[in-house]
Order: sequence, then C-alpha cells, then structure tokens
Amino acid sequence: MEELIAYYKEYKEKKNALTLAMNTMSFDKATIAPKDGHQYINKMLTMLATDLFIHETSDEAYVNIKELSNCDIDPELKRDVELTLLLLEENRSIPKDVYRKFVQTVNQADTSWHDAKEKSDYTLFENDLKNVIEMQKEVLKYHPNKEMKPYDILLDRFERGMNQKRYDEFFDLIKEKLLPFIQKVLNSNKEIDDSLLLQNYSVDKQEKFIDELCTYLQVDKNKVYLCTTEHPFTSFFSTNDVRITTKFHENALASAIYSTIHEYGHALYGLQVNPKYDGTELHNQISFAMHESQSRFLENYIGKSKAFWDANLPSLQKQFSEFEGISANELIEMLSKSKKSLIRIEADELTYPIHILIRYELEKEIFSEEFNQYDKLKEKWDAKYKEYLGVIPSNDSESILQDIHWSGSAFGYFPTYALGSAYSAQFFNAMKNEVDIDKALISGQFDSISKWLKENIHQYGAYKTADEVMMLATKEEFNANYYIEYLIEKYSKLYNC
Amino acid sequence: MEELIAYYKEYKEKKNALTLAMNTMSFDKATIAPKDGHQYINKMLTMLATDLFIHETSDEAYVNIKELSNCDIDPELKRDVELTLLLLEENRSIPKDVYRKFVQTVNQADTSWHDAKEKSDYTLFENDLKNVIEMQKEVLKYHPNKEMKPYDILLDRFERGMNQKRYDEFFDLIKEKLLPFIQKVLNSNKEIDDSLLLQNYSVDKQEKFIDELCTYLQVDKNKVYLCTTEHPFTSFFSTNDVRITTKFHENALASAIYSTIHEYGHALYGLQVNPKYDGTELHNQISFAMHESQSRFLENYIGKSKAFWDANLPSLQKQFSEFEGISANELIEMLSKSKKSLIRIEADELTYPIHILIRYELEKEIFSEEFNQYDKLKEKWDAKYKEYLGVIPSNDSESILQDIHWSGSAFGYFPTYALGSAYSAQFFNAMKNEVDIDKALISGQFDSISKWLKENIHQYGAYKTADEVMMLATKEEFNANYYIEYLIEKYSKLYNC
Repeated sequence: MEELIAYYKEYKEKKNALTLAMNTMSFDKATIAPKDGHQYINKMLTMLATDLFIHETSDEAYVNIKELSNCDIDPELKRDVELTLLLLEENRSIPKDVYRKFVQTVNQADTSWHDAKEKSDYTLFENDLKNVIEMQKEVLKYHPNKEMKPYDILLDRFERGMNQKRYDEFFDLIKEKLLPFIQKVLNSNKEIDDSLLLQNYSVDKQEKFIDELCTYLQVDKNKVYLCTTEHPFTSFFSTNDVRITTKFHENALASAIYSTIHEYGHALYGLQVNPKYDGTELHNQISFAMHESQSRFLENYIGKSKAFWDANLPSLQKQFSEFEGISANELIEMLSKSKKSLIRIEADELTYPIHILIRYELEKEIFSEEFNQYDKLKEKWDAKYKEYLGVIPSNDSESILQDIHWSGSAFGYFPTYALGSAYSAQFFNAMKNEVDIDKALISGQFDSISKWLKENIHQYGAYKTADEVMMLATKEEFNANYYIEYLIEKYSKLYNC
Repeated sequence: MEELIAYYKEYKEKKNALTLAMNTMSFDKATIAPKDGHQYINKMLTMLATDLFIHETSDEAYVNIKELSNCDIDPELKRDVELTLLLLEENRSIPKDVYRKFVQTVNQADTSWHDAKEKSDYTLFENDLKNVIEMQKEVLKYHPNKEMKPYDILLDRFERGMNQKRYDEFFDLIKEKLLPFIQKVLNSNKEIDDSLLLQNYSVDKQEKFIDELCTYLQVDKNKVYLCTTEHPFTSFFSTNDVRITTKFHENALASAIYSTIHEYGHALYGLQVNPKYDGTELHNQISFAMHESQSRFLENYIGKSKAFWDANLPSLQKQFSEFEGISANELIEMLSKSKKSLIRIEADELTYPIHILIRYELEKEIFSEEFNQYDKLKEKWDAKYKEYLGVIPSNDSESILQDIHWSGSAFGYFPTYALGSAYSAQFFNAMKNEVDIDKALISGQFDSISKWLKENIHQYGAYKTADEVMMLATKEEFNANYYIEYLIEKYSKLYNC
C-alpha cells in the first residue's frame, strides 16, 4: 500500500506540473501573448495535452490506482482516488484514434466558430457544429457505464450526480412558476431608466473605483492577480494563486464592477478550500454549479444589496460626480433592470435562467436518440427565444452563435449556471440566519461573510458532494423555491407586479 | 535514416513543449504571479526541469541522435544535431545524484543570495558561494572532454569556441590599451553635469515617450510584448513571439530608455533568425556574445548617436519641457558621462569592460587548480575595484553581492558581455560602409538598419559560429581594436583628453 501511495503521489505531481504549465500558457495566451505567437503556443499546448492524456490514462496508472482505490486508506485520499479513477475510466475507455479525431474536430470547430461569430454568419459554423455533435455522440458510446443515457453522461461530467431527471424537475419549476412571472415583468408598463449607467465613464476612473472595491472586498493581492480580457474568467493556479480578469466598457459602467465581483466569487472559493487539498481532485473537481453559486452569490446577493451600495456609493461618487444625489436603492433599481434580452452574458438576474432553460431543452433534444435535424438548430433556437422571451435575433451572432461552449463540445455545461444561481439563493437564506450581513457590509467587514462561506462551503472542496455541502450549509436538501421566491419578491417590488 | 529523423523530430518537439512551458511559467513568475504563488510555481518548475533532463539525456535519445549525427543529412539539420549532441553528451556525463546535488546547492545559494543582497550582508552568502563553486568543480570532473581545463569548459559553455587563451588576448588588450585611458578620463578635471537626467519625471509620461520610441524602432506589437520588471530581460517564446521588459525610475530617465532599446536589440535578433530554425538549436544556441553585441549595438551605437536624438528629441521634449533648448549633442554628453562606478549594471559605456575584466580575472583564479582562498573572495573583489577603478564599496551589496550570476553558478557568463560589446564596434564599422546610418535614423527608416542586421547577422542563428558570422558580416576576423579605438575616440572628445 505504501508503494501504491508513493506511485499515486508521483502520478499526481506530474499531472499537476503539466496542468500548471498548460494553465499558465492558456492564461498568457488569453492576456498578453502577442498575436503572432498564438499558433506556436496552440501547437505546444496540444503536445502537452496529449502527453498528459497518455500519462493519465496509461495501463500502469489504471492498474495501480484501481488497486489503491480498494485499499483501506484515509477518507480524504480515498475520495481523491475515487474522483481520479472516475475520470481515468471515462477517458481510457475512448480509443486513441477516436479521441484524436474528437480533438481535431473540436479544434476545427473552435476556429470556425470564431470566424463565424466575427462575421455573424452561422453557415460558416453549421457543418462543424454537426461534426462536433456527431463526434461527441461517437465518444459517448465508449463510456464505461452502459446504463446511462448520452445526455446524462454529459450532465454528470459537469455536475456529478446530476441527470435529466433531476434537471427536469428543476427546469419544470422554473418554467411553471417563474416564466409566467417573467413574461409579466417584461410586458409591464414600468420602464426603469438606467441611462445613467450607460454614459461615458473614463476607464482610468473606473479602474480606481475597482481598486477601492477590491480593498473593500479584502482581496489579497499576494494571492489574487487581476487584469483585463475580452471575456472575463477565473484561472486557478494553486491554493495561493488565483488569476481573475475583468472587462472595462466606457459606456457600460456595470460591466467591470460585476465582472470583478463575479470572478472574485470564484477566486474566493479556490482560496478558501482546505489548503491540504492543493494539487488533488478535492481542489480540482469542485462542482461547477457550486462554483457558480459563489460567483452569483457575490454578484447578486452581496453586490446588488442596499448595504453594499450604502458602503460603496461614496467611493463611486468620488470618481463619478454623475452619481451625486443618487440613492443606493435608485442605483440598484437601474442595475437590476429586466429586459427582453437576446444575449445570455448580458442578461439581467431575472431573465438569466430562461436563457439556460432554452439551451437545456435544445441540448436534451440534440442528444436524444431520434435527433437528426441538424439543419434546424438555429430555427429551433430562435423559436424558443421568441416563445419564452418574446425576442427575435437580428443576426446570427445574437442567436445560436453567441456562446463558445458548443464549439468546444461543452454540452451539459450550461445547466450548471442556472443550478448555481438557484443554490446561491438557498445559501443566502441560510447565511442570513447566522450572520448580520447588512451590518457586515455597511461596516466594511467583508471577512465575516467570507468566513461563513469558508466554513460552510469552501473548505470542503470536492471532498463533499454538492448535495452534501448543501445539506451541511443549509440543513436541508436543495430547494429551487428559494431562488424562484427570491426573484419574484425582488422583481414584483421593482416592477409593481 | 528516415526513422532516425522522425525520432529526432519528436524528441525536439517534446523538448520544445516543455521549454515553452517553463519559459512561460518563469516569465509569469517574473512579471505578474502573485507572491504567495511563487513557491508552488518553483516546485512545478523543478518537476518539469527534471522531466526535461530525463527526456533529453535518455540512453535511447543518445544512441539515436549519435547515430543520426553520422548520417548524410542536410547541413542545417546536421548542425542542429551536432549542437544537440554536444549538450546531450555534456549533460549525460554527469551522474544523476551529482546533478541533483548540484541543483540543490544552486537553489540554496539563490535563496541565500537574495537574502544576503537585501540585507547587504555577504556572510549570509559566503558559505553557499563556496558550496556552489565546489559543486561546480565536482560537476566539471565528469565533462567528456578530459583535455579541457575547468574554466575553459565553463567559458565554452556560454560561448562555443572561446577559452582562456582567446579571452586573455582580448582582456590583455583592454588592460593594456584601454585601462590607462579610462583612468585618465576618470581623473580628468572635466565634470559633465547630468543633473537634468536625474530630475523627477512622471512614469506616465515616460511610458508615452517609450511608446513613441517603440514606434520609431518599428517594434511589431503582434510579435513583441513589453512590460516592466525589477531587472529588465528578454524572453524568447518562438520566432513570432518575444517578450521584453524594462524598468521605469522616476529619478533616472535614461533607465527605461536604454533598458528598452537594449532588450529590443536582443528581441530583434530572435525575430530575424531564419524562421525555419524555430524550435531548433539553430535558434536556441545563438552565441551569447553575439546576442549581447546586438543589444549593445542598439543601445550605444544607435541609441547614443546624434542622428538618433535628432529624430527623437522632439518627442522627448513633447513629454518633458525640461529638455527644451537642449541639443542632441548635449544630451548625448550627459547620457555618456563616465563615472568611477561600483555597480556593473549602472556603469557607463567606457568603464563597463573593466567591470567584466575584474570578474574574468576572479573567475579564472577561482577555477585554477591551486585555488582555495574562499574566505578571501570579497577582499580580492574590492582590491581589484580599488586598483582599476579607484573605488571602494561602502557595503556588501555594492561589492561581490551585486550580481546574481555566481549564485546560479553562471561562471563563464560575464566575459561574453565584454566580448559582445567589442563585437558591436566591429559590426558598426562594417555597417557604416554599406548603410547611410545617419540618414536612416534621421528619416525614421529604422528598417534599413534592421535589414542589414538581419541579412548579415541575425538570419544565420546558430547555423554559423560567432567567428563565421563575424567574417561574413565584416569580411575580417574579430579585432578588438575597433572597440578600443571607438571608446578612446568618443571619450577623448567628451573629456578633452
């Protein structure tokens, strides 16, 4: 057993070294790498990914780790080994030539998606999307668990324990209880004037405000690096090193504020996992929905609260005199304005889950046995937007081309966004009973909030499942009604309906 | 033979992928990585370096590459294989436990040097320096060529083809012809007033000037990324991707200007090597002195010329009105001021080679057979500075602690700096006969300068040796008198002596 543990440790260290290398190269490419260097970086990234795949799925690794998983080892190591083995079994079941073809197909689709999006021309991507779906279906045939339906495998890949049955329950509730309310709001007579947010605000001054905001959120600059990218994201380097990016728009002040808060929600999770899980699957395989719950928690429940803006409005007014005379409530009203939106990443809090519902329904259909209407995908997409949100895209990049996910075959990913949003409502409700959130926010004691998150959620990493964390943190099972009720309460006040 | 070539290609690609990964991680660490993440990055870097060492020096690699080197292959591939084999044979001759101990010793010395430098206390480093030297001597015993003297091996490692005999000739000339002249200048009555350069200049405005300077130098932003670090450097990612760093001092305007020009000299070399050498030793193993000749060429022969400042002074004056009424010649006088300097990296053009002479003489002694005066190293250092430059360090960090090189066992590196400076004088002389440099600089046609450098020097990469490039570019063998005469001519005018 000692030998197996030593083998496993070395196996993970090599994996971690290559993973950090690829993370760093990808982050470099997304942030500063000169354009003409991208092709070489991509080529070397493919080499390293292939190396890592070979290392991770070798027969030797499988035999040793399988044997280790049957040993009597401490529970944290056991969970780490289980999570490693799960991925290993899924990956090694795919024949090498199939895997290579899958990677090639995805790379090709990534290129054509970027091109199609830029030109707003779906025909440039349509055929590659079909290829990706067909290759993904081919890959799914090799999955070791022959009982699981194809789309269930994909859902489980992004969120262990989730499947169509559980997501159906969740989305049925959204459709039944929330959708009619949303449609009422979207068709209400009240028009919130948010033009103040859309004036021209210098990026220099926005940066100064974000800097003060980071101080307010107690961002530890020895552990968190912040810069800008076209699409904000978080990248985890190690337990003491997280990179977040944000985006400044001169004509959309809210963009940098909420990108920063959102990504910091992810970062804080990574920083507050039990440090002894660093470099293990207990850090790497945290539930996607759980992660999204933390970014949404900070973005919506903290960052759009009266107490938060009572504390931060003076600093905003210091940079931008346009906000003098505006109250926290007035600002929040503008920031929360609901619109018939076409673009998911620009959607308000209320309509957001409907964007996800649409994608979930489409993915479910695509991966159903009988599906073959590849030439109807855009049509189906647009029909759902018309039906649920009453909008019609004016071009392809506002339609099915808007998200990068499908070009990378990340089917099954979207639903975690809505699930995470729902988790955060339940967490907020639980935290309220234990922490005086308003007092903490007004008095600049963000640490009492992050401490609760650490103790009740973050510390566990992936040692506990999402269901277990939910139970530990809120003392009850997941209940989507917290989310639905929160949205209805907030927006019925805002729109008097 | 086809199989051997295929093997070799794969061998190099894996090497290149790991090298790019390590370059990216090191660059990330030097520029943006949050402080608390450094330890993890270091650990992973060590893992990858070990992996690379094992890959590069395997028996399989040795046998195959040795066999390939005897095949009838095209001359470029042949040279690449030769250079690869040279390193491979040197590295694999070192027993693994000796190599590991060497790496540990160097890591320990790196840590203690940083600490000692910060505290300006040589006693904190003295013992580790002794350990590094002794371990380096131990490693040298395994060198495959038993004929070579220890210091010759080190010199050859940084500059293929160089040895004590050749360096002695060079430094003897410096000592004989240049040193007396330098001492005359340093003791002359003329005092150049360079206080204008040392006033407070806002970094914002310096950045704007540097930006215009980069445009003037036709820096291609799709290939070159520029940022700041404590110690400026250049890092080569690929033939289309070079990173350079510079340093802004509020009270030393020349710092950012000449760091940028110097590093861009290195960058330009990397960018102008024949692109088909990308990822081969013909790109990687360019002579250190040749590289330094290009950075020094841009820094001193271009960047301190009248034509250069005739073209760029208006842009400097636009940012800093303090320079209104100053002529190009007056500015160059200030920028060239010679001082009794203690610190190599702050030394002026004239005294610079003496800093290197001192280090060369010390290194030669340290690696001589009979050397054992480890406790006298600082004393010897200070005595030479007193003798040659007439200065006495006031603390340890101005003395033997000033450079990082020895803590990393980079013995043999320093001499390439002086040799490169001398190369650049000879290149300048040759270029003058073929290009109207002043006209190009005044009319903003830097491309005619970079074109000459590309055609006569850069394109060859390491396909030609430094001696061969010198002959091709200047039609004669290396002759240090160009350098000595240039310095004497320039400084006798400046100091009327």
